[in-house]
Amino acid sequence: MVGNDDIICAISTPAGVGAIAVVRLSGRGCAALVDRVYTSPSDRRLQDAAANTVHFGYIKEGEELVDEVLVAVFHAPHSYTGEESVEISCHGSVYIQQRLLKLLIDTGARLANPGEFTQRAFLNGKMDLSQAEGVADLIASSSAASHRMALMQMKGGFQAELAHLRVELLRIVSLLELELDFSEEDVEFADRAELTRIAGDIERLLVRLCRSFSLGNALKNGVPVAIVGNTNVGKSTLLNALLKEDRAIVSDIEGTTRDVIEDTINLEGVTFRFIDTAGIRQTEDEIENMGIGRTFEKIRQARIVLLLTDFKRGVEGFEAYYLQVKQHVAPDARLIIVLNKIDEISDLLTYQETIRFHTSGETIVPISARTGENLESLVYELTRAYRLDALSSSDVIVSNVRHYEALKNALQAIRRAMEGLKNGVSGEFVSQDVRECMHYLGEITGEISTDEVLGFVFRHFCIGK
Amino acid sequence: MVGNDDIICAISTPAGVGAIAVVRLSGRGCAALVDRVYTSPSDRRLQDAAANTVHFGYIKEGEELVDEVLVAVFHAPHSYTGEESVEISCHGSVYIQQRLLKLLIDTGARLANPGEFTQRAFLNGKMDLSQAEGVADLIASSSAASHRMALMQMKGGFQAELAHLRVELLRIVSLLELELDFSEEDVEFADRAELTRIAGDIERLLVRLCRSFSLGNALKNGVPVAIVGNTNVGKSTLLNALLKEDRAIVSDIEGTTRDVIEDTINLEGVTFRFIDTAGIRQTEDEIENMGIGRTFEKIRQARIVLLLTDFKRGVEGFEAYYLQVKQHVAPDARLIIVLNKIDEISDLLTYQETIRFHTSGETIVPISARTGENLESLVYELTRAYRLDALSSSDVIVSNVRHYEALKNALQAIRRAMEGLKNGVSGEFVSQDVRECMHYLGEITGEISTDEVLGFVFRHFCIGK
Repeated sequence: MVGNDDIICAISTPAGVGAIAVVRLSGRGCAALVDRVYTSPSDRRLQDAAANTVHFGYIKEGEELVDEVLVAVFHAPHSYTGEESVEISCHGSVYIQQRLLKLLIDTGARLANPGEFTQRAFLNGKMDLSQAEGVADLIASSSAASHRMALMQMKGGFQAELAHLRVELLRIVSLLELELDFSEEDVEFADRAELTRIAGDIERLLVRLCRSFSLGNALKNGVPVAIVGNTNVGKSTLLNALLKEDRAIVSDIEGTTRDVIEDTINLEGVTFRFIDTAGIRQTEDEIENMGIGRTFEKIRQARIVLLLTDFKRGVEGFEAYYLQVKQHVAPDARLIIVLNKIDEISDLLTYQETIRFHTSGETIVPISARTGENLESLVYELTRAYRLDALSSSDVIVSNVRHYEALKNALQAIRRAMEGLKNGVSGEFVSQDVRECMHYLGEITGEISTDEVLGFVFRHFCIGK
Repeated sequence: MVGNDDIICAISTPAGVGAIAVVRLSGRGCAALVDRVYTSPSDRRLQDAAANTVHFGYIKEGEELVDEVLVAVFHAPHSYTGEESVEISCHGSVYIQQRLLKLLIDTGARLANPGEFTQRAFLNGKMDLSQAEGVADLIASSSAASHRMALMQMKGGFQAELAHLRVELLRIVSLLELELDFSEEDVEFADRAELTRIAGDIERLLVRLCRSFSLGNALKNGVPVAIVGNTNVGKSTLLNALLKEDRAIVSDIEGTTRDVIEDTINLEGVTFRFIDTAGIRQTEDEIENMGIGRTFEKIRQARIVLLLTDFKRGVEGFEAYYLQVKQHVAPDARLIIVLNKIDEISDLLTYQETIRFHTSGETIVPISARTGENLESLVYELTRAYRLDALSSSDVIVSNVRHYEALKNALQAIRRAMEGLKNGVSGEFVSQDVRECMHYLGEITGEISTDEVLGFVFRHFCIGK
């Protein structure tokens, strides 16, 4: 147990006014600390309370009543932090919340740092570091997909894969280091072909995990979608139409705060960030200005590019326009050609065939953003690669950039080890690379952690968790 | 018990993202309802849980995990509402909060109306109506003074006074109505002089309560202070200086939301609303325009008027200016003359004496808003009438406009009764007036309540309380 003599406290519920708010304390003696400002109608003390019980009572500052409260008492190690903990439910005025917090601080508690409750849970062995990060992701999750990934991580989705990798690596290292002990006898305990095979398995797994980051990151932060087209081609009508399709649970219930970032839309549980790219023209001219340069930059960053055609301008110049956009679409991104305003096009079939003729096998989706016609096809195309049902619980998806960095470093190390094995480098050096690979994997779960890493991880938490 | 077969649910913590959020349910069978989506690692059911216990477990929608939660179980009648209740602490992402709420609604709960938990507490006899209103005031309280008044009311500060009044009134009524039963015999059971004395006591008490509303309302909503003076006389410097004196507990602790209303300042636990009255000039001219008319209107609404003098303009015309302001100051309001910039005035004593000569016994406070000199004297003068230590717990202060209306109506009724007694009106009519007085007092505590009154009271609550 670490920091056990230090009692931390914080408001754990969202900032602002509500019916109730919860102030949480953790650390040995925190029930006795609260007892100094708490009285119950039956004169019972919290420090004598059974584990996991709730008590009504009064918080007083001297003789003055601060609030009527409910207090839940948890005993070590059966609490979130693994320490003795207390949760005080008070009335949710900002004044009362702050006054109660101040009173607890004056009584000897210390204001918790961001994430300090979870940090204590980690230090007390209640969870590993990637699980702790899952808690932060869970709190920040705003779509079904990010919620599911965070829960997966919090429940230890990484642990199994990493534990497996580390056992394999340890096998390599121990065989190599056994040889070193017998170095004068020039024996090889470790079959180099076998080692190369194991390292190859590990390399493939690491590659798969690293690759999943692109999907995981998109699911976590929103899939970037660039909409390309002229100003009158119906971009905002399309966005409004998609907004109506927004199936985010948050829009169903009264009193919900909506995400303020414009053009972030939840479709089928996945967040899409629609990026406006005003500025491109159907022209064969050279890139004229920074504006168009920025548009191409946005196209390169997108995972999906929607190219809206404008039938009113006809198809002249379309091919050059399409090719110009196409060359900026990232290799693993998708280009979808959207024929909007199909309710206004007189000969849709011919138009569609002409567009198809000028493009090379792109997905073409005819819609009317105004009437909503065929919009479901566009939603299907957008969400296809991100469907929740495609996210089976056995797939580990990396969504944390810190994990991604560690996995990339581990991958480089294992590749160096493979190179060494191939070139017949001494076991001593190969072993060093394998140990480095293990080190990076250990960073993910926190088996190897520095204050710097912990500081980085928990700095991103909210206070009170 | 009312509405007991109806299970209500709501998010009770403030809107937004936090470490945790609490979803509350109330109504018979709510533990069994939650059991349908809850599983515990030990397979225990919430409906079998002991009262006031907390349980760790999982909320699942079908096979899919929604969150890991803590659930507190309360049995009727030992809960806030007096009904069986459950409080679910989940992770505080908006997504999880909304998803959990939707799941509970899909499982058979109903979204609670604003204040419905407290309304049930009222209907189940856990508190009277004025106490319920105290709960809403407590949640809205943003200063030590409003917090203390709300707590007083929630703890039943009104009940004692009102119960006493009603007993007295009932005595009058029963004596008068006894006479009616014996009306043919022309007896007087009720000594008219005695009745007049009692009615007089009640009238005085009602007058005192009505008068306290002016103070109570100011403490609850902020004491309106008008600052009068030229634009360069240092009004904003003064406001900034007072802001630094702001002893509101909320400003002491990091991460606090500040009131966004400009120029609302907490001094010694009391909220002051500083009203800007730009537009008055030191002039003997007639009122020239609407602007000055509005300024006088604001002066009339203020409970404290600060008249800042501008020594640079000398004292010529000051008396006329002062008299012009003075005539608009409300009879029960205070006028304080503030001599600002005393660090720049060469002969302060003479200046002060001149100002004193031109005013009739007003409080004069010389300060320097820039250097902060003597600011504490001004703060003392501002807060004098509102000091918390002057608010003894035995003083009942009316701060609720609904109570004030009812008290005014009760006062009119008792005065009609006194008038009737004086004029020898038949006991029948006097009794009617006394009953009406009782009716209005009953409205305050909710002994007499209509759907309309209840609707009015609980409409102003937040959801989840």
